[in-house]
Amino acid sequence: MNANIKWLREKMKMLDMQGAIISNPINIRYLTGIIAEGLLLITRKENIYLTDGRYTETVNSTLTIDDEIIVHEFSDFSIDEYENFFLFCENVGFEGDYVTYNGYKDFMQRYKINSLQEMERVIEKQRMIKDIEEIDKITKACEITDKCFTHLLDFIKVGKTEKEIALEIERFFKLNGADGVSFDPIVASGKNSSKPHAVPTDKKVELGDVITIDMGCKYQGYCSDMTRTIFVGYIPEQVKDVYDLVLKNQLQTEEELKEGANVKTLTKMVQGSFELNGYNLIHSLGHGVGLEIHEYPYLSSKNDFTLKDKMVVTNEPGIYIPDRFGVRIEDTVLITKNGCIKLTKSDKNYIIVDEQ
Amino acid sequence: MNANIKWLREKMKMLDMQGAIISNPINIRYLTGIIAEGLLLITRKENIYLTDGRYTETVNSTLTIDDEIIVHEFSDFSIDEYENFFLFCENVGFEGDYVTYNGYKDFMQRYKINSLQEMERVIEKQRMIKDIEEIDKITKACEITDKCFTHLLDFIKVGKTEKEIALEIERFFKLNGADGVSFDPIVASGKNSSKPHAVPTDKKVELGDVITIDMGCKYQGYCSDMTRTIFVGYIPEQVKDVYDLVLKNQLQTEEELKEGANVKTLTKMVQGSFELNGYNLIHSLGHGVGLEIHEYPYLSSKNDFTLKDKMVVTNEPGIYIPDRFGVRIEDTVLITKNGCIKLTKSDKNYIIVDEQ
Repeated sequence: MNANIKWLREKMKMLDMQGAIISNPINIRYLTGIIAEGLLLITRKENIYLTDGRYTETVNSTLTIDDEIIVHEFSDFSIDEYENFFLFCENVGFEGDYVTYNGYKDFMQRYKINSLQEMERVIEKQRMIKDIEEIDKITKACEITDKCFTHLLDFIKVGKTEKEIALEIERFFKLNGADGVSFDPIVASGKNSSKPHAVPTDKKVELGDVITIDMGCKYQGYCSDMTRTIFVGYIPEQVKDVYDLVLKNQLQTEEELKEGANVKTLTKMVQGSFELNGYNLIHSLGHGVGLEIHEYPYLSSKNDFTLKDKMVVTNEPGIYIPDRFGVRIEDTVLITKNGCIKLTKSDKNYIIVDEQ
Repeated sequence: MNANIKWLREKMKMLDMQGAIISNPINIRYLTGIIAEGLLLITRKENIYLTDGRYTETVNSTLTIDDEIIVHEFSDFSIDEYENFFLFCENVGFEGDYVTYNGYKDFMQRYKINSLQEMERVIEKQRMIKDIEEIDKITKACEITDKCFTHLLDFIKVGKTEKEIALEIERFFKLNGADGVSFDPIVASGKNSSKPHAVPTDKKVELGDVITIDMGCKYQGYCSDMTRTIFVGYIPEQVKDVYDLVLKNQLQTEEELKEGANVKTLTKMVQGSFELNGYNLIHSLGHGVGLEIHEYPYLSSKNDFTLKDKMVVTNEPGIYIPDRFGVRIEDTVLITKNGCIKLTKSDKNYIIVDEQ
């Protein structure tokens, strides 16, 4: 049986669950490698993947005999057979954040389950710790992201629009080995950079603009996430101080990120430094990265959580001055026992792109 | 009060619901114009949109006084105030296909509701009938799609890859007034065209290829959907017969599409014609188009449903010969009392693109 399913079966034993229905497609991909629409049933005797005719071929080609997962189509079973899947199971786990109310009702009826038990995101929590293959894929996604950034420094000129730059990011990722973007790129120039979640507009890049570029790609399903704030032609004096403060905090956080670090303390450290200088940290300091662009753990001042070896998180302090400008600097890093390893490696010193 | 919310309140009266919680963001956009993350509460006295600080400004700028919707942040209310929203409401509607099991539990607890009642997609069903503004937006999305197709006929050459063509479609849409694509474009050349849901690959276009291009964009939230199958350099003889048969059925369906037409009958007509010639219709004949690319009604042989004036649907018969080639021709059309109006208007006769 594959290691992740073995882990899940152990966990279920601890939770007194004799069966489980896994619905979240990301969790199914994590546990089995399968990329399709369907359900994973963990029953007393077997691991069963239920899907429809469109996916059977792909799913079978993904699995090996070592996975010990049997593939069936939904239509393979009679009403009676469905009711037998969880026979003699007192508690059957399900994912209350992924199953709709109607889906839940349907489970109850179809499988005739006595007690469906919410699984409280046990798989999402397990996904925080990455194995070597996962780390390799995230590293690859980060490498492509760094290459894209280098390419952009040539591409960006006065007169290009934010939308054109965002499209170039998507194009570069798809043509350089990535599955695609891990989220819609943010390209925010001039005043627009003051909005942390700016959407690219038709605004043209101008001399003296700061540009915040927040982008990431997926490689074999695994995400990268990086932000750089760059300058066009020259560095406006008032931006310099803010840039220096953000970078100082980003580097200090980098120093502290390691197994045993508490994310609440880290976030409060940055918050404190910003406040001392008259600014605020208006979003979280970072988040986990993996099969999803935002996943556990969340680095915020409300989360009393301690980092562990082999977690992958972002480190992304930012300062936003309404209607003027914003600066954010972000890396994706791997937590280890002795410190963190930067997976995105693009330059964080002042970067000035030529005006033409 | 805006017309859509007035309609919903009437409908709720008929369903004996004194309140409702609307969660599906597409339904909220349909009812209010709001594009954000939040909940619409229809209470005895008021219509309340609940959101968080990130969206308050945008939401308030979307609404007018005539909408009669009050905007609040989730944090504005105390536990007691939440419990008072649905006081004296016997039945409160909710969307069982959009609320997760955990969300449902949360509703029960937070609002102290006696009886939460599943709404059985009443809003989705109402969305089938489009008003003039909606038709205008879909028409605009279809116009941009037609323009993109004309552009592609110049762009496509022997040696271009499927991925490059798909990227060009996305680029064209974004630079020509669309919000973006309404779904990932399908560009399937040669053998790949035999898969109805092919994903663009690095395969280069070759002389003698058929290319199936299935694409659509969004304009102010509303979708378009069009497929054309074109030829590179010349038309292979064996493809011609299949093309003619698909086109004949697409045009016959076009003739029949009007208020009063039964979609089961229409689908069986095409199925019959394909079978007579030794082929099969392996997917549905079409689907509704609006704020979502696939919505009610579904044109399939299992759906005994009669079309009405002002519905917008696709007409997309296709034939797929495994490992050889496929042909699909699709338009988005508006149903009227006397017939249908084609909203996508690109040429459906043989189209041969130059090899270079």
